[in-house]
Amino acid sequence: MSGSDDINPLVRIERENGIAVITLSNPEKGNALSVDMAEALLLRVEEAAEDSTIRSVLMTAEGRFFCVGGDVRSIGAAGDDVGALLDRITTPLHRAIETLLHMEKPLVVAVNGPVAGGGLGLAAVGDIVLASEAAHFSMAYAGIGFSPDGAATWLLPRLIGLRRTQELAYANRRLTSAEAASLGLVTRSVPDKDLRQEGREMAERLARGPVGAFAAARRLLLSSDCATAKAQMDLEARSVRAQAMGAEGREGVSAFLGKRQPEFAALP
Amino acid sequence: MSGSDDINPLVRIERENGIAVITLSNPEKGNALSVDMAEALLLRVEEAAEDSTIRSVLMTAEGRFFCVGGDVRSIGAAGDDVGALLDRITTPLHRAIETLLHMEKPLVVAVNGPVAGGGLGLAAVGDIVLASEAAHFSMAYAGIGFSPDGAATWLLPRLIGLRRTQELAYANRRLTSAEAASLGLVTRSVPDKDLRQEGREMAERLARGPVGAFAAARRLLLSSDCATAKAQMDLEARSVRAQAMGAEGREGVSAFLGKRQPEFAALP
Amino acid sequence: MSGSDDINPLVRIERENGIAVITLSNPEKGNALSVDMAEALLLRVEEAAEDSTIRSVLMTAEGRFFCVGGDVRSIGAAGDDVGALLDRITTPLHRAIETLLHMEKPLVVAVNGPVAGGGLGLAAVGDIVLASEAAHFSMAYAGIGFSPDGAATWLLPRLIGLRRTQELAYANRRLTSAEAASLGLVTRSVPDKDLRQEGREMAERLARGPVGAFAAARRLLLSSDCATAKAQMDLEARSVRAQAMGAEGREGVSAFLGKRQPEFAALP
Repeated sequence: MSGSDDINPLVRIERENGIAVITLSNPEKGNALSVDMAEALLLRVEEAAEDSTIRSVLMTAEGRFFCVGGDVRSIGAAGDDVGALLDRITTPLHRAIETLLHMEKPLVVAVNGPVAGGGLGLAAVGDIVLASEAAHFSMAYAGIGFSPDGAATWLLPRLIGLRRTQELAYANRRLTSAEAASLGLVTRSVPDKDLRQEGREMAERLARGPVGAFAAARRLLLSSDCATAKAQMDLEARSVRAQAMGAEGREGVSAFLGKRQPEFAALP
Repeated sequence: MSGSDDINPLVRIERENGIAVITLSNPEKGNALSVDMAEALLLRVEEAAEDSTIRSVLMTAEGRFFCVGGDVRSIGAAGDDVGALLDRITTPLHRAIETLLHMEKPLVVAVNGPVAGGGLGLAAVGDIVLASEAAHFSMAYAGIGFSPDGAATWLLPRLIGLRRTQELAYANRRLTSAEAASLGLVTRSVPDKDLRQEGREMAERLARGPVGAFAAARRLLLSSDCATAKAQMDLEARSVRAQAMGAEGREGVSAFLGKRQPEFAALP
Repeated sequence: MSGSDDINPLVRIERENGIAVITLSNPEKGNALSVDMAEALLLRVEEAAEDSTIRSVLMTAEGRFFCVGGDVRSIGAAGDDVGALLDRITTPLHRAIETLLHMEKPLVVAVNGPVAGGGLGLAAVGDIVLASEAAHFSMAYAGIGFSPDGAATWLLPRLIGLRRTQELAYANRRLTSAEAASLGLVTRSVPDKDLRQEGREMAERLARGPVGAFAAARRLLLSSDCATAKAQMDLEARSVRAQAMGAEGREGVSAFLGKRQPEFAALP
């Protein structure tokens, strides 16, 4: 794979065939969300979001864990500066998550192992989330007297409902990979040995798809929660009109009528 | 059945015993949502909503499909006018869905076969949705480079959660009838041969019920998403007070205490 | 158990070891929500919420039922005053539910038996809800021509989704204890004989936990519905910063690093 960049080794980014693969790469620390890790992540996410040659993003991690959450040792070492330290972590972390939610291309997350605390939001933020059978999911905030961050309280109620979110938050229930798939925290649980390939294939499949239409669907799903049905349908109408008039819609309809595969990725 | 009306043959309406049955009736085209079909649907929906003798509505379709979504052939033929064509479809379609959501009587949908694209919202908009085992559900927008419409991005997150909605939108997952029931896209999956009768029985049962109370519950469920708990409970209190003071509440309480069946449909 | 208080016998409160146990105690009437019952409940809830020595609340009921909903006999007897009567029930009931939602400590509900109507909100409002196998759940409003109250239309869509809420509201589906657990109306179904002990143990476990962090998570989950992801993450960041700087966060981190159990309940 070309395009590797080792300037910031905590989070790698590789680009190939219109896909950016973002990899949390601090396996010795379980990819803990230190200040450096959060800043590196934001950098990589912004690169992937802004690069118009990138049509889909795959986020995954190296080592046994996907992300163990905050770096408790450095938090403990901060003493009276712990508030400032937390800000230096949550500011880039939250901005990275916001960028992932709003970027104009789809996001696949391949969860290679256990996830806790601040890692939950990163795992759950994908449009499609594949979790290896070795993955499991817990909030783990209450154990250290913290409240959730990393968009967990925004994403989880929308994905698994309020009751399961409460169970994770107050009873610290740990979800297995299969439970996470069944409840909708992730899309699907896959055998460990297949995760990397399936994640890659899904990202490639999305990159071959109508990325503008996917971006429109992402915008619509972000606006849905608090829109009236009428307001949401107005947005849908504007959106489908624009897609129909644009290159993707024309190619898609033409391919459908011509009984051929559409070539969205080749569009100018 | 009396009251049939053949002026607009694309969507039939029949009235009997306080029920209106709205039937998409273009089976050769899979009940595709052409301009004519969307306009006919709106007309029928408004008739059913405004007719005060109608206490519940059953919506279903003729032929092998419930609704295949947009009419791709006419969309392809529209050329540079495709934006205007889309408007002419989504305007009546969305108004029909809005009317179905806000009308003061319950809606049963009997999904007789496969559903795709713009048909999804029509299938899902019912208060009670019965799906024949032959039904299946897919978004199918991305295949032609379109973004979802027909209230799909409003209804699906509320019915099946964000994760499954994403899976349908980005990975084009197709839900079987049983999966749709298990996830809550529909209320129940029923054997093909029983669909028509069960749909009819459910609509009749609702028509015998307290239609004003059902209308109040519909209003409450529409306001719930973005209300604070306090604001929603205030609406509930006002609503239950009005029902208790009204004819339905008096009849219901009197019947309960008299150990007899309430006669809501006979109320003036 | 000490601290029992028999002044208001319809709802008892007992305090022990930082827990308040609130018990609906009108088993002969199935703990029906009369004016007196609703007022007694509000009183007890306010006591538990305001008592700073109480770190968690367990709500349960006496007898075969958890709560059968409104007291239909007194409603029937009210005649033209039924609207005023309803107000006198819903005003304290809704204020009790609001207090339970907003109090700065976690709530466990142990549902000892069947629940209907206005009891649904009381059963569902817990952060953790354990239901005995003898419990079942129904709306039962439509039977008497009423619309839902008691926060049912706010809680149920968030807990079990719109489709199942509609099924309960319009088709009066009755959920078994196991179904309620599977759908997320309750956290878990437990054998009848274990309910009291498991409810007690869960409340004690939460009382030993970081109650301030739990209160912060409760606030976050209440604000999540209608917040944008960005706004919600801003709240999360402020909240986790405050927790990290506070006594609970310091104790939690110190215990984690020292590989010992945190002693949150001993904090000043």
